[in-house]
Amino acid sequence: MEKWPTIHYQSSTAYFSSPCFILITTPLIRFHPPRGRPGLKPRERYIGNPSSPHRLGARADTALTQAREKLAAWLGCEPHDIVWTSGATEANNTAIQSAAANGAKEIWISAIEHPCALAATERYFGKSRQSIPVTPDGVADVAWLAKALKIGTPGLVTVMAANNETGVLQPWREVLELCREHGVPFFCDAAQWIGKLPARGLGGCDFVSGCAHKFGGPQGVGFLKVPAKFRSLIVGGPQEEGRRAGTENVAGVLAMIAALEERETALRSEFVSERAAWRGAFVEELRTALPGTKIVGGGADRLWNTVAAIMPEVTDCRQRWVVKLDKLGYAVSTGSACASGKEETSHVLAAMGISADEASRALRFSSGWETAHEDWTRLLEGLRNAHREFAS
Amino acid sequence: MEKWPTIHYQSSTAYFSSPCFILITTPLIRFHPPRGRPGLKPRERYIGNPSSPHRLGARADTALTQAREKLAAWLGCEPHDIVWTSGATEANNTAIQSAAANGAKEIWISAIEHPCALAATERYFGKSRQSIPVTPDGVADVAWLAKALKIGTPGLVTVMAANNETGVLQPWREVLELCREHGVPFFCDAAQWIGKLPARGLGGCDFVSGCAHKFGGPQGVGFLKVPAKFRSLIVGGPQEEGRRAGTENVAGVLAMIAALEERETALRSEFVSERAAWRGAFVEELRTALPGTKIVGGGADRLWNTVAAIMPEVTDCRQRWVVKLDKLGYAVSTGSACASGKEETSHVLAAMGISADEASRALRFSSGWETAHEDWTRLLEGLRNAHREFAS
Repeated sequence: MEKWPTIHYQSSTAYFSSPCFILITTPLIRFHPPRGRPGLKPRERYIGNPSSPHRLGARADTALTQAREKLAAWLGCEPHDIVWTSGATEANNTAIQSAAANGAKEIWISAIEHPCALAATERYFGKSRQSIPVTPDGVADVAWLAKALKIGTPGLVTVMAANNETGVLQPWREVLELCREHGVPFFCDAAQWIGKLPARGLGGCDFVSGCAHKFGGPQGVGFLKVPAKFRSLIVGGPQEEGRRAGTENVAGVLAMIAALEERETALRSEFVSERAAWRGAFVEELRTALPGTKIVGGGADRLWNTVAAIMPEVTDCRQRWVVKLDKLGYAVSTGSACASGKEETSHVLAAMGISADEASRALRFSSGWETAHEDWTRLLEGLRNAHREFAS
Repeated sequence: MEKWPTIHYQSSTAYFSSPCFILITTPLIRFHPPRGRPGLKPRERYIGNPSSPHRLGARADTALTQAREKLAAWLGCEPHDIVWTSGATEANNTAIQSAAANGAKEIWISAIEHPCALAATERYFGKSRQSIPVTPDGVADVAWLAKALKIGTPGLVTVMAANNETGVLQPWREVLELCREHGVPFFCDAAQWIGKLPARGLGGCDFVSGCAHKFGGPQGVGFLKVPAKFRSLIVGGPQEEGRRAGTENVAGVLAMIAALEERETALRSEFVSERAAWRGAFVEELRTALPGTKIVGGGADRLWNTVAAIMPEVTDCRQRWVVKLDKLGYAVSTGSACASGKEETSHVLAAMGISADEASRALRFSSGWETAHEDWTRLLEGLRNAHREFAS
């Protein structure tokens, strides 16, 4: 009988499972007795309200401090720079709001940012924005930025680390260097990068956002790395040194950091190159099996887990692909989950010069950390079958 | 071997345990396979991204819809009125921001609101605010409000349902009636009320906020009931019909609603009167055992789980009570956890006319849903011992 509440945050292994092509995770959250009890396992932790004056609260506070130290070490910043949030959307809104409130007059933001960064830009900067163009392969144009920074000085530059629809890696290191050179604050939305590639160096940006469920943690928790000059979005409590009010999601934060710890450890091995090879093989075979398929951003470096493809014209409705593959056990997407609620042309694909017609045939395949080579093979088989059926 | 992720949200029983006087909870979160598998228990649910077009996403969306319907039925509003948030702090910030953005020029807000409502008021209304006074027992002054509404019309009236430091119930029904009469929007922060008393009728207010960890759900999730005319705080995604961007904390919301379902069911029985009687007996015995003890708001109706007491002058540092009781296994508080990070005089006690000297001797005891009568008795014993030690 488990009467005593326990928090277990059991390494939050990413439970990716074929035949379902999506990543799901399990921070096994339980709560433990406030006193030492026989049978406590080493990773079990107490939970409480970190602002409370009693020891239960102090323990929660200590756990959060340790989590902060770990994340700061991975990013390469100070623990104090980290503010926990409810996810990357809140973090992105907060960063752009903070820059505007602290006097930034104009924002330069890449054309392929996440919809929430673009919406926050509209709210806080209105028309005082410039769009940083991207190459046909979906890479933010550093040459354009270098040239533009010689004649203008924005209050904030915003370029994501990796794109959520195409997986295309963005030149955040070069952008960071340019911004430093010109003394311009730089915000990097790293929600797609963190956990898939090493976080190292991202802490050098003024703002960096990340999100647990993108790397195997639970939904509803994320973080923002902030500069010293910062204004909070959610006010009215001493939590996070007054930079984000509200009782901390202790279990969520601990699960997030446990998940990221696993990722950061895995990323030090051959993990990435192996997975990129599987993905590469899938792409090659897909092109052969379904003639006319185009890989979005195919000429650029991309995340090892994402393939965005323009499917051949065998059906006039791409939802048919989704439905068909769903029945076969593959949860594929028509764009970003965030944007696919509305069936408009993707702003990302449009910025890359892809026509509305082609964009309407885009599908996105994402793998997880535990996806095996066979899963890609089986997905290809499913695509072949669907294609055969549509074409007949 | 549990390879398949499962979400279990196991009734999130409030694991309150003596000898620790605090409520902790356990939404046992696991994730389940995307396909039907033998052995699934009835309450197990699938998890996915509700905005995704595949069935895994659709299942998450359906689960959230059902959660919304349940909460709406308890509150007495439409399911569509509910917006999930990361907690009451975000919800309160959002409500006040929304009212200001939609043209409210002045806010009238009770003097004893949660710090986050007061901070949001400062941010969005600046000096355009009036403070609604409270009686010496800590009840918002309805007579004052009735009179004031005859000569002025604020853009928003804000009065909480129950106070977080004193447990004193607020006359939200009367305030709601007055506001309706005068056509003034009413925001009720019900974070302390919901789960401890039936939510019925609260849905009649224009804005109502609530928070899972206050009634046995996990930290990091809450909700806001919103009116038709609403402006979101966190923008840039189609979630919540565009009223709160960001991937939904599906497991958190389901755990929250499972917790509240248990509460709402319990509250239909003799639960409240029985617990109020135990609390009442504790208060009586405390007064006798520790002469000079004063109960804050003692003359008003209060939540059955909260006792705020001004302790007798046996020690010049109330932290000594906390430390002493903590060692005995009781996690008591010096104020609200949210405000007790900084040791300033409580604005709630000040508004009630309690002197800074007396306020500095305030302690707060909170019980949980599974606190037994014996727990109160043992806490009293601990207080007696501590008192004896301090006095000697």
